[in-house]
Amino acid sequence: MTLIEKLTRSLTRLPGLGRKSASRIVYHLLRADAAYVEELAAELKELKAKVRMCRICGNYTDVQPCSVCSDPGRERKLLCVVEEPRDVLSIEAAGEYRGLYHVLMGVISPIDGVGPEKLRIASLMQRIRSEEIQEVIMATNPTVEGDTTALYLIDLLQRGTTVRISRLALGLPVGGDLEYADRLTLARAIQGRRTV
Amino acid sequence: MTLIEKLTRSLTRLPGLGRKSASRIVYHLLRADAAYVEELAAELKELKAKVRMCRICGNYTDVQPCSVCSDPGRERKLLCVVEEPRDVLSIEAAGEYRGLYHVLMGVISPIDGVGPEKLRIASLMQRIRSEEIQEVIMATNPTVEGDTTALYLIDLLQRGTTVRISRLALGLPVGGDLEYADRLTLARAIQGRRTV
Repeated sequence: MTLIEKLTRSLTRLPGLGRKSASRIVYHLLRADAAYVEELAAELKELKAKVRMCRICGNYTDVQPCSVCSDPGRERKLLCVVEEPRDVLSIEAAGEYRGLYHVLMGVISPIDGVGPEKLRIASLMQRIRSEEIQEVIMATNPTVEGDTTALYLIDLLQRGTTVRISRLALGLPVGGDLEYADRLTLARAIQGRRTV
Repeated sequence: MTLIEKLTRSLTRLPGLGRKSASRIVYHLLRADAAYVEELAAELKELKAKVRMCRICGNYTDVQPCSVCSDPGRERKLLCVVEEPRDVLSIEAAGEYRGLYHVLMGVISPIDGVGPEKLRIASLMQRIRSEEIQEVIMATNPTVEGDTTALYLIDLLQRGTTVRISRLALGLPVGGDLEYADRLTLARAIQGRRTV
């Protein structure tokens, strides 16, 4: 196998890259600046060498604790519970939330053999008991697994703590079109309507 | 900027990868096997360090001359002229052609400031004079630039050599649908019709 074939094959293991797009990337790299490719290779190695889970929130970070957990400007009474580290990225990008995070590192999914014991739930309960958290926002995905996980955690929190619990609003996406909204989303948008 | 952000930004410079898909790849890598990421980084470095243009045909290769040029089983009287190294890959994948290649490394494109002198034309003429080539297949793309380049080369070859010249057939794609064929393609398919 040539180097071109080897790298193409390795790239097809990445999400979203098929044979054609991987090949296009390889030929692009062959024409690209050598310094850029060196940098890319170095960044890949550094990523695996240095990025770890934050020991407090579980998000990926190259400093301990992560930049959110150690930021004195964040509201420490708000805790947003998400499934994955990339969800933190999405919520941060929205620019609306200024509290802390807790990453579960998955969802309850019996079909994949993931029970609550595989998620970062013990550390969540520990944080709620020891930190000054007043509200927990359940920001799992609005999917069967996400909802199951949220309901499990809400039950746990209601039994063991007095913390306020909230969930993200469901409804029409901004810029969306009623015509193209699915029935469930539209039903939730109607249920959750606001008086103006 | 964190390592995650740095790598995401570097990946968005690759063709076909936007911010979202780059971010998805980075989070995938964080969960991936460390050995795989190491290998990917090593392959990237090796690609730039070892892959060069074949000194005969101009295709990318990590051996000199490339595996096609040095293959005694290839038909040495046939020469297929293509724009880019990836075109060699496409033609090889089709499994129909058993001759040699010559990669121009571009097309004549006055708008991008690419004249014939920037292409591998001198070495093409040299090969046709010194090798036992009987037929040159002009396999540039059926685009304005590809056609311009083909016409330029055909003129050059007809003046300076006695080699037979051919072009790839134009017509409907296999599995295609008359209804969705563009007018020009359909017109070429009619012009190029074959008696059965």
